Amino acid sequence: MRVFIPGMDGYLGWALAQYLTAKGHEVGGVDAGFRRQWVAEMGSHSATPIVDMPDRLIAFKEKWGEAPYFKSGDITSWDFVKEVFEEFKPEAIVHLGECPSAPYSMVDVHHATWVQSNNIVNTLNILFAMRDLAPESHLVKLGTMGEYGTPNIDIPEGIFEIEYRGRKDTLPFPRQAGSWYHQTKVHDSHNVMFACKIWGLRSTDIMQGVVYGTRIDEMGDDERLLTRLDFDECFGTAINRFSCQAVLGEPITPFGKGHQRRGFLPLRDSMQCLTIAIENPPKGGEYRTFNQFEETYDVYELGEKVVKVAKELGLKAEIHRIENPRKEMEEHYYNPDHQHLLDLGYQPTHDMEAELRIMLGDLTKYRKRIEDVKEVLIPEIRWDGTKRKSKFLD
Amino acid sequence: MRVFIPGMDGYLGWALAQYLTAKGHEVGGVDAGFRRQWVAEMGSHSATPIVDMPDRLIAFKEKWGEAPYFKSGDITSWDFVKEVFEEFKPEAIVHLGECPSAPYSMVDVHHATWVQSNNIVNTLNILFAMRDLAPESHLVKLGTMGEYGTPNIDIPEGIFEIEYRGRKDTLPFPRQAGSWYHQTKVHDSHNVMFACKIWGLRSTDIMQGVVYGTRIDEMGDDERLLTRLDFDECFGTAINRFSCQAVLGEPITPFGKGHQRRGFLPLRDSMQCLTIAIENPPKGGEYRTFNQFEETYDVYELGEKVVKVAKELGLKAEIHRIENPRKEMEEHYYNPDHQHLLDLGYQPTHDMEAELRIMLGDLTKYRKRIEDVKEVLIPEIRWDGTKRKSKFLD
Repeated sequence: MRVFIPGMDGYLGWALAQYLTAKGHEVGGVDAGFRRQWVAEMGSHSATPIVDMPDRLIAFKEKWGEAPYFKSGDITSWDFVKEVFEEFKPEAIVHLGECPSAPYSMVDVHHATWVQSNNIVNTLNILFAMRDLAPESHLVKLGTMGEYGTPNIDIPEGIFEIEYRGRKDTLPFPRQAGSWYHQTKVHDSHNVMFACKIWGLRSTDIMQGVVYGTRIDEMGDDERLLTRLDFDECFGTAINRFSCQAVLGEPITPFGKGHQRRGFLPLRDSMQCLTIAIENPPKGGEYRTFNQFEETYDVYELGEKVVKVAKELGLKAEIHRIENPRKEMEEHYYNPDHQHLLDLGYQPTHDMEAELRIMLGDLTKYRKRIEDVKEVLIPEIRWDGTKRKSKFLD
Repeated sequence: MRVFIPGMDGYLGWALAQYLTAKGHEVGGVDAGFRRQWVAEMGSHSATPIVDMPDRLIAFKEKWGEAPYFKSGDITSWDFVKEVFEEFKPEAIVHLGECPSAPYSMVDVHHATWVQSNNIVNTLNILFAMRDLAPESHLVKLGTMGEYGTPNIDIPEGIFEIEYRGRKDTLPFPRQAGSWYHQTKVHDSHNVMFACKIWGLRSTDIMQGVVYGTRIDEMGDDERLLTRLDFDECFGTAINRFSCQAVLGEPITPFGKGHQRRGFLPLRDSMQCLTIAIENPPKGGEYRTFNQFEETYDVYELGEKVVKVAKELGLKAEIHRIENPRKEMEEHYYNPDHQHLLDLGYQPTHDMEAELRIMLGDLTKYRKRIEDVKEVLIPEIRWDGTKRKSKFLD
């Protein structure tokens, strides 16, 4: 299948291009290079020593025989999206081309408005391009489990049947997102659902958990094929940051009580799930939602797993909680469904410790790169609009 | 109270400035003049002969003794919003500064992305300005009953308590909006709710029904104080367009079956309700929703009311349904709550026919202006992305 990946230069995008190619799909992508700029703006860089896209494409060709279709450009430009759709003629689109950071969106009014208009406009452009140029194609849209927030009831997959005052209907599950970034994903979900309804487009909206891990097997040993791994407060997800802290012997730092419960999955499972979605498209006009994660854990529990594996590897590792820069519930009910992907054959990687061993091994090689900018590991962007480094709580 | 009105040059904004001044409030506003541009883009103009803002302000001063604070500018500019907040120091904001048209947002990808980013960014700017410069102020945000769509269950006011799999929570009511424009209002609702939660701001989110009517008593007889009244397919609401058709002796044209049920209220009631919201602010951190309409009617019933009043006035008037350019349910359950405003003292104008008599009388004076561009009365912007005039169904 011809799969188009906006955001192919990113953490998930570069891994997915290789994973899908290994599975026999034809991959094409675009990227504006924003992720590299944002991380530089944070005073940070990828822990893995990633090469630029031209060199990535050369390495890709050496390994897989052919480089993927790729264009550098910004998908908030309709002309660019149109051109790429006309040239590549996608059968599926995995939209990884949005700004994915909650703290980045909370920096100030300029970041908030930029993230919201960037994410919303580029998704609208893709929807219009599908309508006009690829009406049979399938949009796999990356949302986040964070769209749901932490309601005091079970979280279904996107929609639910409810009874209210004696009448029943099947409706979108209410969203209560916790940052300007997370809100963009809610806005997108509404927009994508509407496009499917009025234009007969088909889409799988992925409510993804927090992804961790440095690699997938398909990357092999060529460093030029490694994907990025961020550890700054904006672009580093929880376990990735904890692992970088463990490698440096720095404290592992859950926010606040640390009992925020979330869904998590390793990078290889994210790739597996996205591929299942692509290979099992919905029918025309169908908008479906997959909650994409392996299991839920609280952040403190994950810190403990990182500590355990780090100690096995002879690293000194301790958890010290820090002030929570966010405004969120730190203890709450959390019971999201995640059956749709399992029904389609998803086999979760249950051995989180094995995954952590690989990740800590990789990161140990790049210890110096993390050390060089280690101050980015402690957050300073606060949800109340102020900016100061979080203090240790214990 | 010092009330700031972004969009003061518009249909509701200009009426509200006068209504609030008559009630003793101090009014200030901004406008970029977009509404005048959009209506010109549709090849139309206001049925009422509105003067430009400088002349409006002169007439305002003659009647009320002082002109309101006013600046011409675009509130998607943070610098402009900041400047105005610093100068006017609002205690309440009635945000009428968004693009309010469903068909306009459906024209093409450029209109869709413009309307979405315009509406979302300008509301975010206001939220940040409140946080930084007027944290005690109260945002009265104009949403629309259209945010809810037409679910098969009762529609509460914004939030509802539900039981799901044996657990209970109070959650935002699911939104299923029917155009890119309506989606912006859903996005705003989520953004405003979030700002109240994290920053302790206070807001009343108005899910307003369809407003009709040419005047409020406070305008008096000075034509320079009249508000605009649009009748093109993008900016003319249903009853306003029906009344213009009646005045010309043209068919009155509900879309499709005509059994789309909506909430409606006259302009004078919209002003009354917005003032009640301003004068009864929520507490800090509170986000509340008012469903703002008088009663629900189906569009065909409203056409019949216009016919009845038109005939009393000696006008020839007949209903002829036309193809529905929208994708929407034409027969459906519809039972929205609307108790919050009544509890605060809202006294609905129950005599719709009296209101129609005033409106048809006003519009008869400006018959020639409507006649000159009457082709705009029949829609051509279709939800499937094509453009052609709707044909008559009977």
